Amino acid sequence: MESSRSTARPVGRGAKVRAAVHAATLAELVDKGYAALTVEGVAQRAGVHKTTVYRRWKDRESLLVDALAEHLAADVPVPDTGTVEDDLRALARSLVQSYTSPTGRAVLAAMFTGAAHLPEIAAAGGHVFRDRLTRAEPVVRRAVERGELPVGTDPGEVLRTLAAPVYLRLLVTGDPVDETTADQAARVTLAAARAGAFAPPDADADAAAP
Amino acid sequence: MESSRSTARPVGRGAKVRAAVHAATLAELVDKGYAALTVEGVAQRAGVHKTTVYRRWKDRESLLVDALAEHLAADVPVPDTGTVEDDLRALARSLVQSYTSPTGRAVLAAMFTGAAHLPEIAAAGGHVFRDRLTRAEPVVRRAVERGELPVGTDPGEVLRTLAAPVYLRLLVTGDPVDETTADQAARVTLAAARAGAFAPPDADADAAAP
Repeated sequence: MESSRSTARPVGRGAKVRAAVHAATLAELVDKGYAALTVEGVAQRAGVHKTTVYRRWKDRESLLVDALAEHLAADVPVPDTGTVEDDLRALARSLVQSYTSPTGRAVLAAMFTGAAHLPEIAAAGGHVFRDRLTRAEPVVRRAVERGELPVGTDPGEVLRTLAAPVYLRLLVTGDPVDETTADQAARVTLAAARAGAFAPPDADADAAAP
Repeated sequence: MESSRSTARPVGRGAKVRAAVHAATLAELVDKGYAALTVEGVAQRAGVHKTTVYRRWKDRESLLVDALAEHLAADVPVPDTGTVEDDLRALARSLVQSYTSPTGRAVLAAMFTGAAHLPEIAAAGGHVFRDRLTRAEPVVRRAVERGELPVGTDPGEVLRTLAAPVYLRLLVTGDPVDETTADQAARVTLAAARAGAFAPPDADADAAAP
């Protein structure tokens, strides 16, 4: 996926084409699914010639990876409400929203089932996840600075714990995913974090901190 | 998946054939992957004629679902060590072991990626998960009875939280999954459970109980 992003960032008409093709790729994915996704179909929907698409992306896989990465990078805003409780709840709700919209469902299906046999797509799934995680880490660091969570709390572990039940339901159990799922994930994560379960074991002594 | 199980339970030679065919199915899955799995290949490996296989299973999908269900049902023993901490750790370690063996990796790939477009397989994944969960619920109920966890703690939610980070790593992030993953999952789950995060909100008052 780096290959298609390492080119100079397009501007002007290039950027518009790029955005239109990305949008068309996701729309085709929603309407037809991964298996039926074609460069021709994307080009037609975007209103460009397919050679325009092939000039920028070598095949439908690199196009899809690029569109997914762009969509997912923009998709989960990082909150800063002033309290860790509200921040974690907002993050979990955004994650739920991003995967329960029609586009989100299609993106998830493409990344984790339909196209999961493609190493680039599997890598993109992991990459996007880590990218979102890194961007959200300030939520935890601010909470530690405010004294809401024990010193030494690992932001990555906190955020993985927050996201894990959402993915479990989406990918494994098929149980409904909604705001209740998000709020419960935030509640569990916060309780464990306050108890020091994301800090080195010797930091457990701080568990009683508010 | 019920269709293939609703026939009378085989005994004697029937049971032996069934076990041999199940084992051959999993072995073929490990060696060749889901896409290359054929009834012919399974029959040959099991040392039976393919009509013997077709007499019991209508196609490779029902064979696979049946073999997966049998394998996974037998695969994660339910511990009873006397403390919730050790029980949760043992459960998480068993889960990790079951999915990091060569058979486990192949089973996971078949259920959640390779064959995930087959409704029967997707349903089998969810079914197996719920089945394992139900069998492990006594771990939590015993902990509540012993006073280790607050009254009202939801066993299903505890166990989903325990399993979620393992699946997240296996299916989403691709991060390594090992004993440390299991122990951390147990630590986080236990901390949240002790704090009352799996009990109704008004039970949070019990959070300070040991």
